[in-house]
Amino acid sequence: MYRSRLLTPGPVELHPKAQEALSRPQLHHRSDAAKKIFLQARAGLEKAFQTQGQVLILTGSGTAAMDALVLNLFQPGQRVLVPVQGNFSERWARIAHEAGLEVVRLDLDWGMVVRPEHLENLSGQFDGFLLTHSESSTGALNDVQTLAQTFKARCPEGLVVVDAITSLLVSEFELENWGLDAAACGSQKGLMCPPGLAYAALSPRALQCLKPRSFYLNLGAELKVQSSGESAWTPAINLVAATAAVLEELLPRLPQHTALKKQQNDILYTTGDQLGLTTVPEVKSPATTCFYLPEGLKYTQVKDAFAARGATIIGGQGQLRGKVFRVSLMGYSDIYDAYAVARMMRDALSFD
Amino acid sequence: MYRSRLLTPGPVELHPKAQEALSRPQLHHRSDAAKKIFLQARAGLEKAFQTQGQVLILTGSGTAAMDALVLNLFQPGQRVLVPVQGNFSERWARIAHEAGLEVVRLDLDWGMVVRPEHLENLSGQFDGFLLTHSESSTGALNDVQTLAQTFKARCPEGLVVVDAITSLLVSEFELENWGLDAAACGSQKGLMCPPGLAYAALSPRALQCLKPRSFYLNLGAELKVQSSGESAWTPAINLVAATAAVLEELLPRLPQHTALKKQQNDILYTTGDQLGLTTVPEVKSPATTCFYLPEGLKYTQVKDAFAARGATIIGGQGQLRGKVFRVSLMGYSDIYDAYAVARMMRDALSFD
Repeated sequence: MYRSRLLTPGPVELHPKAQEALSRPQLHHRSDAAKKIFLQARAGLEKAFQTQGQVLILTGSGTAAMDALVLNLFQPGQRVLVPVQGNFSERWARIAHEAGLEVVRLDLDWGMVVRPEHLENLSGQFDGFLLTHSESSTGALNDVQTLAQTFKARCPEGLVVVDAITSLLVSEFELENWGLDAAACGSQKGLMCPPGLAYAALSPRALQCLKPRSFYLNLGAELKVQSSGESAWTPAINLVAATAAVLEELLPRLPQHTALKKQQNDILYTTGDQLGLTTVPEVKSPATTCFYLPEGLKYTQVKDAFAARGATIIGGQGQLRGKVFRVSLMGYSDIYDAYAVARMMRDALSFD
Repeated sequence: MYRSRLLTPGPVELHPKAQEALSRPQLHHRSDAAKKIFLQARAGLEKAFQTQGQVLILTGSGTAAMDALVLNLFQPGQRVLVPVQGNFSERWARIAHEAGLEVVRLDLDWGMVVRPEHLENLSGQFDGFLLTHSESSTGALNDVQTLAQTFKARCPEGLVVVDAITSLLVSEFELENWGLDAAACGSQKGLMCPPGLAYAALSPRALQCLKPRSFYLNLGAELKVQSSGESAWTPAINLVAATAAVLEELLPRLPQHTALKKQQNDILYTTGDQLGLTTVPEVKSPATTCFYLPEGLKYTQVKDAFAARGATIIGGQGQLRGKVFRVSLMGYSDIYDAYAVARMMRDALSFD
């Protein structure tokens, strides 16, 4: 009766160009055809991240790129500043801790954004600043450009490393122009591909700071071979082809695309306002909406109401579990899909 | 004029059940439907590895599972024995070294298999024995069961960890019955799926020896959540669905399937013999053939001769680069495909 709609902030509805690429016969990753596609995907990703450095493609979840950046850019004992205001910024703190770094946490209420004034009363120097651009667990968008400037004024030698997992190709993003040194992303978000690839972007400065470690996630080993379209280990080459195909379509009209994502998200938030819902994020990321559950409703009731209409939404993570619900149009969709989902929100939340 | 044939020992021709699963709409990995598929894939893999322990699904290349096993089963400073007789056994040695273990190498000529007598003159005790079941860089198959027995007679406390990447579902494999403690595999080999998933099998004993470390490849974190059909990080859920679909088809007739793989490989080797080719492996793995290049021919000539007939083959790795060529029917194919490829070998190698 209803068609299925995936309305989660990743995985998302697939781009038709991704589906088309994925239906091709299996490529061998060392073939000339595969190398050409690999280089095409890397060139497209370098445009997406807006870097003159390099983007390395890793086979893994987005978390693999975050882990790889921390392992390969910092040495045990180095001191990093990590604002924590949601599930994914918490992940940075855990990754850095496991990598043996000294982690200085800056805990904020979940849903809040990091502001330059939060950096004022810190003491000592930092070797790095681990930031989350779009904190999709709360729907908040951090102004990573301003934060990078504030940090660098204080620690000019420090590296700013950004989780751009739900911001790349969804919100504006510029690596070097914004003063960022490295960033991580994954295939199942703004790229509209299935999950399974991670992207690690390194600015020219970050490339000079590499201190490769780890076996599987060794960025030095990847750097050596990826410039010729190979990878250290067998890559998820089908997803590399999907990445290249989507970017070819998306990059020429990226400003219109990110404008659409914002407009779609605004439509859903306006609908939420009209329904009397309370918004979680202080500053809204276009990657996803995040609303507190209406008084007296359990998350499963809201989830089931969407499911009864064919749609998959998602609840809260960590301390927001059971308290919020999230609806996202980050995937392949147009403005009319936003109106469709807005109407579905009204229907799903009318429990009379 | 010719149809395309992928004749490499991974990636391989996809199983139609994998292709079918991959063409489904995108699933959210935390949905009930996804959890059910995840558990189905794990149960199937546990049958494939023949373990009463657990198989953990990791998003990554097969190498990720090898790295994860070494990181999570051994601590820095522990002493492991690593026979090296090809590119993939060399990889075990490098992984163990990077993980901080004391690596005792047992270097053999490439193409040879490891024999119990090779273990006779070693001194001291070992905490682990890292073995390659099917060394696909040379086409050799090690008798890991006998080797495990020999090792355990000497080091009863040591853990035997096996690279089963090109043997699982291709050759017979039994984890506990053969005295093995852990094994690694990847999706793009006997599973006939695209690359992007790694499988780490842990016997009941290995589960008790886990000393979790690493962030992305932490098997303790995975163990905690995978029993309920989730994974620590966003999994390549599309490939998990493909894994489940192929196993559902393959497991009920696994003995016939492995018999077919051996028969296909034998047909290609017989053809090679008739063509006067010299075989590389001392004991043949059914995963791939491996022949020395005919006198006076360069690898690119052989590769191009197959390519002119629509087929992709692969050359040598490491010290065998430029010296051998490999043709494999590990992927989706039947006995008549073996006759077809045998005829193609004759045509491709007739340079008159």
